[in-house]
Amino acid sequence: MPVYADSLQNLINLLNRLPGIGPKSAERLAFFIVKMSDDERQQLIKALMEVKSGIKQCAICGQWNSNSPCKICGDAKRDHSFLSVVAETQDLAAVERTNEFHGIYHVLGGTLNPLTGITADDLNIKSLLARLQKNQPAIKEVIFALNPDVEGETTILYLAKILKPFKIKLTRLARGLPLGADLEYADEVTLADAFKGRRTL
Amino acid sequence: MPVYADSLQNLINLLNRLPGIGPKSAERLAFFIVKMSDDERQQLIKALMEVKSGIKQCAICGQWNSNSPCKICGDAKRDHSFLSVVAETQDLAAVERTNEFHGIYHVLGGTLNPLTGITADDLNIKSLLARLQKNQPAIKEVIFALNPDVEGETTILYLAKILKPFKIKLTRLARGLPLGADLEYADEVTLADAFKGRRTL
Repeated sequence: MPVYADSLQNLINLLNRLPGIGPKSAERLAFFIVKMSDDERQQLIKALMEVKSGIKQCAICGQWNSNSPCKICGDAKRDHSFLSVVAETQDLAAVERTNEFHGIYHVLGGTLNPLTGITADDLNIKSLLARLQKNQPAIKEVIFALNPDVEGETTILYLAKILKPFKIKLTRLARGLPLGADLEYADEVTLADAFKGRRTL
Repeated sequence: MPVYADSLQNLINLLNRLPGIGPKSAERLAFFIVKMSDDERQQLIKALMEVKSGIKQCAICGQWNSNSPCKICGDAKRDHSFLSVVAETQDLAAVERTNEFHGIYHVLGGTLNPLTGITADDLNIKSLLARLQKNQPAIKEVIFALNPDVEGETTILYLAKILKPFKIKLTRLARGLPLGADLEYADEVTLADAFKGRRTL
């Protein structure tokens, strides 16, 4: 015998499909939504209906934002000779929040992953090559800002190979100990990287 | 400068208000929703629109389900002499999943909490008293199945006091070590409870 009403169970099942939402969280969210005021629920429904129509993928860098070309690609004040390659729009946002990088971006839309069947054709690599071929204004450095995991490393290796003919400086983010880390508990690869990348004071 | 498009940021903000969804999870969910097919997103929107209309609060026990009176209250096969008092419909569902209890329920709709301003008037206590006053069919035992935390304990103490005049047997769920627990790490109150409630083999 199903315990919940059909409409509630249906919402629980759909919420459960979202990333990071297990069956228990889905239940909790569904009950929270039931207990919301009609106004609040309508706000959420409206936001879901409008989210897609309010955003466009930038024809240049591939990020999801309100305009195409996006504000960053169209910003003459930014240094267009530094191009940072990121996996997703969220990663671009994370880099922007550091206020450390003032160049432009290219959003791949993912990383190479043979297990989930994501190949080079699924990523915005053609448009990256087209940007570099055009090279107007001249790009001096391509910075790979990808996650330091198997997929990220594979993607960096692949891109480094196909971008080699352009003879542009290729760099990647430093690996090392994150702020607040504990030497004792750091994994060996990270600690070794931190040693290799040590900086003069 | 805001990093995301307005419609996306709006969805992120609304998702961030849901319980257990922090800013990062809200971002992740919002991007997942953007990348969903239009069909999938429509399904989710439809579920949100219909969730409230598809459920009713049972006029007898106060649980949220498809009918009023609910299936449990209307089920003559269940033992109507055992009444289990729970805080929320989710707790009723959790008890049902154990297949251990075949009586009926009363859903309070919360627990007493002076900090968040939930008083006895906000809970379904009047309807509980009305059920016991009517007492048709006779209720032999009221089982308090509330969370073993400060709010749950306070609610049990309060209800035990006002239900005393009915001279019905009042019980509460056993406290002790959960399955898979580690004696070494058990807190003292739980371990003491486990000793007090020890069972003959």
